[in-house]
Amino acid sequence: MRDAATPPAPTHLDPAELRTLDAHWRAANYLAVGQIYLMANPLLTEPLRPEHIKPRLLGHWGTSPGLNLVYTHLNRVIKARDLEALCIWGPGHGGPAVLANSWLDGTYGETYPDVGRDRAGMERLFRQFSFPGGVPSHVAPETPGSIHEGGELGYSLAHAYGAAFDNPRLLVACVIGDGEAETGPLAASWHATKFLNPVHDGAVLPILHLNGYKIANPSVLARIPHDELDALLRGYGHDPLYVVGNDPATVHDALAAAMDRALDRIGDIQRRARSGGETERPHWPAIVLRTPKGWTGPREVDGLPVEGTWRAHQVPLAGVRDHVDHRRQLEGWLRSYRPEELFDAAGAPRPDVLACVPEGSRRLGASPHANGGLLLRELPLPPLERHAVDVDKPGTVLHEPTRVLGGMLRAVMAATARRRDFRVVGPDETASNRLEALYEATGKDWQAETVGTDEHLSREGRVMEVLSEHLCQGWLEGYLLTGRHGLFSSYEAFAHIVDSMVNQHIKWLRTARRLPWRRPVASLNYLLTSHVWRQDHNGFSHQDPGFVDHILNKSPEVVRVYLPPDANTLLCVAEHALRSRDYVNVIVAGKQPCFDWLTLEEARAHCARGAGAWAWAGTEDGGDLDVVLACAGDVPTQETLAAAGLLRRHLPELTVRVVNVVDMARLLPPGEHPHGMPDFEYDALFTPDKPVIFAYHGYPWLIHRLCYRRTGHPHLHVRGYKEEGTTTTPFDMVVRNDLDRYRLVMDVVDRVPGLGVRAVALRQAMADTRTRHHAWIREHGTDLPEVADWTWTG
Amino acid sequence: MRDAATPPAPTHLDPAELRTLDAHWRAANYLAVGQIYLMANPLLTEPLRPEHIKPRLLGHWGTSPGLNLVYTHLNRVIKARDLEALCIWGPGHGGPAVLANSWLDGTYGETYPDVGRDRAGMERLFRQFSFPGGVPSHVAPETPGSIHEGGELGYSLAHAYGAAFDNPRLLVACVIGDGEAETGPLAASWHATKFLNPVHDGAVLPILHLNGYKIANPSVLARIPHDELDALLRGYGHDPLYVVGNDPATVHDALAAAMDRALDRIGDIQRRARSGGETERPHWPAIVLRTPKGWTGPREVDGLPVEGTWRAHQVPLAGVRDHVDHRRQLEGWLRSYRPEELFDAAGAPRPDVLACVPEGSRRLGASPHANGGLLLRELPLPPLERHAVDVDKPGTVLHEPTRVLGGMLRAVMAATARRRDFRVVGPDETASNRLEALYEATGKDWQAETVGTDEHLSREGRVMEVLSEHLCQGWLEGYLLTGRHGLFSSYEAFAHIVDSMVNQHIKWLRTARRLPWRRPVASLNYLLTSHVWRQDHNGFSHQDPGFVDHILNKSPEVVRVYLPPDANTLLCVAEHALRSRDYVNVIVAGKQPCFDWLTLEEARAHCARGAGAWAWAGTEDGGDLDVVLACAGDVPTQETLAAAGLLRRHLPELTVRVVNVVDMARLLPPGEHPHGMPDFEYDALFTPDKPVIFAYHGYPWLIHRLCYRRTGHPHLHVRGYKEEGTTTTPFDMVVRNDLDRYRLVMDVVDRVPGLGVRAVALRQAMADTRTRHHAWIREHGTDLPEVADWTWTG
Repeated sequence: MRDAATPPAPTHLDPAELRTLDAHWRAANYLAVGQIYLMANPLLTEPLRPEHIKPRLLGHWGTSPGLNLVYTHLNRVIKARDLEALCIWGPGHGGPAVLANSWLDGTYGETYPDVGRDRAGMERLFRQFSFPGGVPSHVAPETPGSIHEGGELGYSLAHAYGAAFDNPRLLVACVIGDGEAETGPLAASWHATKFLNPVHDGAVLPILHLNGYKIANPSVLARIPHDELDALLRGYGHDPLYVVGNDPATVHDALAAAMDRALDRIGDIQRRARSGGETERPHWPAIVLRTPKGWTGPREVDGLPVEGTWRAHQVPLAGVRDHVDHRRQLEGWLRSYRPEELFDAAGAPRPDVLACVPEGSRRLGASPHANGGLLLRELPLPPLERHAVDVDKPGTVLHEPTRVLGGMLRAVMAATARRRDFRVVGPDETASNRLEALYEATGKDWQAETVGTDEHLSREGRVMEVLSEHLCQGWLEGYLLTGRHGLFSSYEAFAHIVDSMVNQHIKWLRTARRLPWRRPVASLNYLLTSHVWRQDHNGFSHQDPGFVDHILNKSPEVVRVYLPPDANTLLCVAEHALRSRDYVNVIVAGKQPCFDWLTLEEARAHCARGAGAWAWAGTEDGGDLDVVLACAGDVPTQETLAAAGLLRRHLPELTVRVVNVVDMARLLPPGEHPHGMPDFEYDALFTPDKPVIFAYHGYPWLIHRLCYRRTGHPHLHVRGYKEEGTTTTPFDMVVRNDLDRYRLVMDVVDRVPGLGVRAVALRQAMADTRTRHHAWIREHGTDLPEVADWTWTG
Repeated sequence: MRDAATPPAPTHLDPAELRTLDAHWRAANYLAVGQIYLMANPLLTEPLRPEHIKPRLLGHWGTSPGLNLVYTHLNRVIKARDLEALCIWGPGHGGPAVLANSWLDGTYGETYPDVGRDRAGMERLFRQFSFPGGVPSHVAPETPGSIHEGGELGYSLAHAYGAAFDNPRLLVACVIGDGEAETGPLAASWHATKFLNPVHDGAVLPILHLNGYKIANPSVLARIPHDELDALLRGYGHDPLYVVGNDPATVHDALAAAMDRALDRIGDIQRRARSGGETERPHWPAIVLRTPKGWTGPREVDGLPVEGTWRAHQVPLAGVRDHVDHRRQLEGWLRSYRPEELFDAAGAPRPDVLACVPEGSRRLGASPHANGGLLLRELPLPPLERHAVDVDKPGTVLHEPTRVLGGMLRAVMAATARRRDFRVVGPDETASNRLEALYEATGKDWQAETVGTDEHLSREGRVMEVLSEHLCQGWLEGYLLTGRHGLFSSYEAFAHIVDSMVNQHIKWLRTARRLPWRRPVASLNYLLTSHVWRQDHNGFSHQDPGFVDHILNKSPEVVRVYLPPDANTLLCVAEHALRSRDYVNVIVAGKQPCFDWLTLEEARAHCARGAGAWAWAGTEDGGDLDVVLACAGDVPTQETLAAAGLLRRHLPELTVRVVNVVDMARLLPPGEHPHGMPDFEYDALFTPDKPVIFAYHGYPWLIHRLCYRRTGHPHLHVRGYKEEGTTTTPFDMVVRNDLDRYRLVMDVVDRVPGLGVRAVALRQAMADTRTRHHAWIREHGTDLPEVADWTWTG
């Protein structure tokens, strides 16, 4: 091994404890290797034969011995100190290790009774791993004790902090692989030290596992001098401890000592803050564990070094089924753990192996925090009546919808002041997104330095503001999966920053919903605002409505998308989202002044239906319908209503229905989404044969993708955002994208058959107004007075 | 200001230089304020009246004085040292500052002749800013000297490194805002020090600008103790220099001294490495600049502190048009820069102001590196004949397509060994993605420590392996925008990690294409492999084909998506992508053994068409067609061919056409994408009225979204990935998603009218085989022998 602080002398553990810890570690290593290779003969009661070996060897050995070591030593301190603990296993392919350990501590067999602690259970444990219909090579929802998918890297430390917030008795250990440590989200996560409060939050103990390699390359942090690494961790606000070595006994001793020192320090920090009133930001301990990749595995294979190199990443011996030499080497490797000392003839772990394992829910595999639904409490939501806006007449009074929502969120924040199970996260946009009312009920979490001019910063705050969508998302995921509630508010365009993270969360929820032992957790709720139509000074770079498209590609049992058109509908949708479980709810809403269309009562009915006609806006009188004006989103709704008003005034003989869609999934057939509208209902609302002019908030083809199976689809004409982004006024934006009221009227004239000469004249007048708009905005930089002063007068 | 290293005594600059630097800075500050507020009276030749003020005040003052200071001092050192330099302006809303400076150095007026250095030009500069039809509040493609959009934060430092790689004479300064510094991508970017070679790369000089605040909150790095910040930067591998203050003269002097020290050190490092043969990784200098947010702006507004707080972020005085007090305060602020000393009566900057400005292409606004197409050379591509695979008969021989591509890339890498203008980036997946042939021509760039067992690491390597998709993307963008070539290879699912980054790059290219002065740059080429159908041990977390959907939402003039079905088509597509300009090309291809279908000549013709019938695979004989089997992607193509084989054998009377689509945009109408297929061509290929069973690689509704306008759309039936991801065999994956050969045959029977009893029997046999598959895989963990051994026998 390489230069680093000298490990402490091997005097921390007494020999008996060293022996039992090592037995547990060896047992876990044995089980990890078994999972990668074996489908029979799990106890090696006979010499290995080809038919004992899986037909396809798929899995990852490299990280497993290190994770087994950490699991073993966490067992020790949990038991010794009666800790309430959770561990986040960051290294991507740590599946074999975590599965092995939860099999050993009994939680695996309790969760999956046919995979118990006996020979048959061990064989099933081995066989199911990386096997068709089995479990993946990384930690997943199926793994007891886990809240963190090991597949995509970068989010372990953010998840750990999310789990620790408002969990004052919890220790969250977090193993960070040195591969993962190169990712952006992980690199930013270290700074969460500035957001963790020692009084009302739990502790996070990062364990940076430097085994030196990622898939095929050395890792950066393993190849910088010790002084640089040490400076880095101190720069992050940590007080690091180092455990370095490749001799098991020495490393056991050093790791036990480091864990004890770390936990003593954490205890000190919490005691000083909780009883002594210490308010300085503490320097939390962190452990750097530097052990060989694939430790205890084959030193060499076919003459090439394996242990301690990237070659140990996956399956070190690839030819064991066909080549007797490899098979013999595998057998030697397995027997090097002395399985007969570890398991009895029935396959049960012997007492020495289990000596370090804690009891009951103290076991890492059994932590209720890892099955957060067990701990989840109903969120106290206020009566919406207290926050709704009065609407005497639609389209005449303006409110900022997110500001109205802010009032409701303030009430939720106040009602959870003692429980502390609700947080709002955002990338420094809470005020910009007009949710400032929150600050009347709580502050912004801030444990770093303060100055006299600061406002709303608070050591106890439950609004989280950090300029990293990745941290917002990771913290919130960790918070929700451990049984709490929350909301993520973001600029619409920049939600794409977490596209890949939300993918993994949706996959987690989809899989967890299918596991009966996983209890429902609170939904992940996005409020996307500062949206595509209102980026007046930011322009093109801030314009992208595609997060909704991304979400609607994913598992329909999990995803929900809402576009409330005004303040009261936003309240109804938000209430529903905050009450729901196991979903990802995306709410797209405006922060700019927006006309109120519906009273609270109307909004409730409209949101319950998800889509419906606004009779007051159309001109139906029981006769034949000529055209449907459909809309989804606040700005398209306004343009549609303005178009309906123009038609009512200038073509009063035209029969128009105005349909507003709040819940986008209603457009899908019922077989494609649980909210999908049956064909008879769709046909009744949109007609099977009349032209539908649909003004949509985002990319117009999304509506086609949702509706292509409907009978009326050939008559569906959609306007939306078509990448004509720029720096300009709100109305000019809709004109540039052909979503404006004048264009919608022209679309009606173009598509309704049999209209007369007055319609032709109206079309020309609309085209002329668009031309006039272009000239006016060039000269004045503002919108036409008739647009700026428009209200609904229908 | 807060505790930090004491700034050097003010003795570095002589008084005359201090005076001219300050004049330049004041001029830039004046111009920045003018842009935010004024639309007339630019020289303040008369008292400010309401009509001089813009009707809507949109813009960002806070970061501008700091950026103006850096620009001024970069001018100084560029001129004094005759540097070839580029600057990346990270702070999000630095538009006013960078525009002001490029107007001052004359490049703005050279680029946009009506915005020259006179009164009328100044008025236009002011008016266009954050104004309809004008320029956004951040640095953008329209800004001379820029390669970095300022809208979305996090990528400045990665862009800077990308620009510096293989540009040995270039200095890339990079201003990093302390808001941006909280993002994940930026946090990871600091470690690029381990990838920058002092011999053949240029230098990157990070300037961390701590003005203390982001939008509405303090920034983390501004609120940690000096020692922690210093440790952090040393941990990143830097040797930091600090400039702290709020007295202009002192800060000018300190910044000039720090820049001189930094450049002296950079010179030393490069000299030692280039002539002295020094191979130790250097500790590059970095500057920390700690000055007040909104420095020199209003101290207080309406009784609240503004300068030095987050309130200075946007428009410090909001009511200037309506309130005389605010207007008077604005006028005082503008006059505090003493504009009459800075500009002559005609509006031209006076000599003192311009004293620090360098000449010609040395000016930051005129750097050819910021208009990389000026420097771009044609990439030397090998004749494909050297790398193509022989195909005697379709569907009988297997190759790994990406491995074949690796051979071609090796040739490109070898041919650019001296030019050094081609790099391949990947998140530690180059070998996993089977491009190892590259290592015969170059190594993996690695400037950190090495050990004896390392392979292919090299200080000169041009394969970049870092476990951060963000860094890969950012480096490549910087490399391409400065006139070089490259390829990004990634696991398909994890390309979503850079969804938001590629959005911004596409927006950049779309805007740049419309600017006549911006020369075309090489396309950004993605090779997405390890795709959804072949995640045998990773399972659900690694399965996501949606990057293509994301890309196809964006500007059609920029985006291209290719799904080559075999090795030779992959070569043809890659050649086209590497030759192309100003595109984002997404190539989805397999790395696992895949049947070869086309000879090189056939592949060329097929890729040139982008979609075409494979006559040899169908059963057309001039008579009526019964059904079209369409496919896109390697696995769907194999299943479609297998289905075609089954139909040929069991229903020989059925007339089948097999159509393969390589270029997805061909499915769109020509009005929607430049590659779009005219209706007559679409109808000729797919028919307007026959059933089309389309087996698609990704989400099936994407095909509907592309084809919904076609006459034949009601007859289009698409199979694809429907989120049924799991850990299993490749064939079981297609069965679970109803994309398998047996299901496709069943679809044909279900949709072709008038088939007889033999078809019904065939359908039953297919269903039985699927049932048999389920039982077999449960027992054996492998695919049915007839699937495993299948070859095309048509």
